[in-house]
Amino acid sequence: MVLINGKANDKISILDRGLQYGDGVFETIAYRNGKAEFLEQHLTRLFNSCDLLAINFKQQNELRAEVDLICQSLQQEQAVIKITVTRGEGGRGYFSDNSALPTRIISSHPHPDIPEHYQTDGVRLRFCEQTLSINSRLAGIKHLNRLEQVLARNEWDDIDIPEGIMSDEEGNVIEGTMSNIFIVESDKLYTPVVTRAGIAGVMRAQVIQIATRSGISVQEREITKKALSEADEVFVCNSVIGIWPVSAISNKLYPVGFITQFLLKALSECEK
Amino acid sequence: MVLINGKANDKISILDRGLQYGDGVFETIAYRNGKAEFLEQHLTRLFNSCDLLAINFKQQNELRAEVDLICQSLQQEQAVIKITVTRGEGGRGYFSDNSALPTRIISSHPHPDIPEHYQTDGVRLRFCEQTLSINSRLAGIKHLNRLEQVLARNEWDDIDIPEGIMSDEEGNVIEGTMSNIFIVESDKLYTPVVTRAGIAGVMRAQVIQIATRSGISVQEREITKKALSEADEVFVCNSVIGIWPVSAISNKLYPVGFITQFLLKALSECEK
Repeated sequence: MVLINGKANDKISILDRGLQYGDGVFETIAYRNGKAEFLEQHLTRLFNSCDLLAINFKQQNELRAEVDLICQSLQQEQAVIKITVTRGEGGRGYFSDNSALPTRIISSHPHPDIPEHYQTDGVRLRFCEQTLSINSRLAGIKHLNRLEQVLARNEWDDIDIPEGIMSDEEGNVIEGTMSNIFIVESDKLYTPVVTRAGIAGVMRAQVIQIATRSGISVQEREITKKALSEADEVFVCNSVIGIWPVSAISNKLYPVGFITQFLLKALSECEK
Repeated sequence: MVLINGKANDKISILDRGLQYGDGVFETIAYRNGKAEFLEQHLTRLFNSCDLLAINFKQQNELRAEVDLICQSLQQEQAVIKITVTRGEGGRGYFSDNSALPTRIISSHPHPDIPEHYQTDGVRLRFCEQTLSINSRLAGIKHLNRLEQVLARNEWDDIDIPEGIMSDEEGNVIEGTMSNIFIVESDKLYTPVVTRAGIAGVMRAQVIQIATRSGISVQEREITKKALSEADEVFVCNSVIGIWPVSAISNKLYPVGFITQFLLKALSECEK
């Protein structure tokens, strides 16, 4: 089921600025246990992202009602809900007087089949050659300009490697193509800063919150490839996959360590 | 009139990767004097851009026929033709096996009203705060990830300033929000390199070709704001506006100089 501005419809105008310029933002939400997980956090980020891009989005109540409707329509136990908000339709040209009604699209999708052993044994990652641009104004925002991720994710098609690591133009590790990354060093948790490149993931914020509340030290900092290679534990996370321990990056092996296992368990309790 | 994959239609699926990720490219072509100007150059760049993004676009003959059809349908003397090619429809997720049919969209739009004095007296520009990211893989390509241009162009709404200048993250002048930029120093023409940021415009290539053939020295190089402020002449160009001499950038004034006037005249002869 797809709702566009409240109507069952799965097509948008070619004049929509989302298509023309990637002029919009999106959220990807897991539907599990009868609810859209961390919905408030996703909506808060969505509204905040609209503000940051000066998208004049006022239909927050309508959007909430439409997400409810989509959830009620779901037959499956698990699904993925995607919300996209664009600056709406416009003529040609980058300028917008923001008078157009933003386009809101809510769609449900099948939940991906994730092998169970990914969470118990960990996943194998690779390094991507495609870099992430540095742009302080756009960093952190889950906007629709995602060509870098597309190019990075299409560097490989080995189904045994479910994720790749992206670095910024200066060589610092930033995130996965679809996930955020954390490392453990001497029982402390670190994750890359995402104020110059990368996305501030909702699951990333959840992990930071859970760790902090559990007395695990968490810090955002620059993470080099060397620090990554020397880490005691590594994991990636996003709203759909939850947490995936990392068992290998290229030829370097990592254990599924204690802190990762603790966070996995704490997260699964949060989600209930 | 709009044609999507050959059919009169102005709506695309929300699953189109052009909307989801800005995963596509576009061309903006002036229709004047009964023809789509520099059509071959635009098509060459479009096909080349698809190759660079590994979009498996094979419908080149169909696209040519559809552009002809759009041109024949035009009642106006002047118009703008936009061609967009995306990687086609896909599920959720950045990965694509490139098996989907790319989406080709050809649309006609009204030609913008451009005051005549822009070409005779020049235009006033401003500097944008929004920077252009540095990304060697994407630089040069006219792809659909255009949020930086959107944010830059929306920094002002003074109708007497038709264009703004964008710099890269290192402070070098790269281009206008919708145009390329040239400067004249001691009768020689210079334009910023666009291999790390910016778009390699079709009109930019035309200007370089016309100048070179006319014995005017042209060089691509880094252009600092200081070099811009000390230039003898400045102009911007794109396929729709042609060449606009620059009369002022913020408070700095420039003459509409001899080389700019020569190129304006030479270009208008090319277009006939």
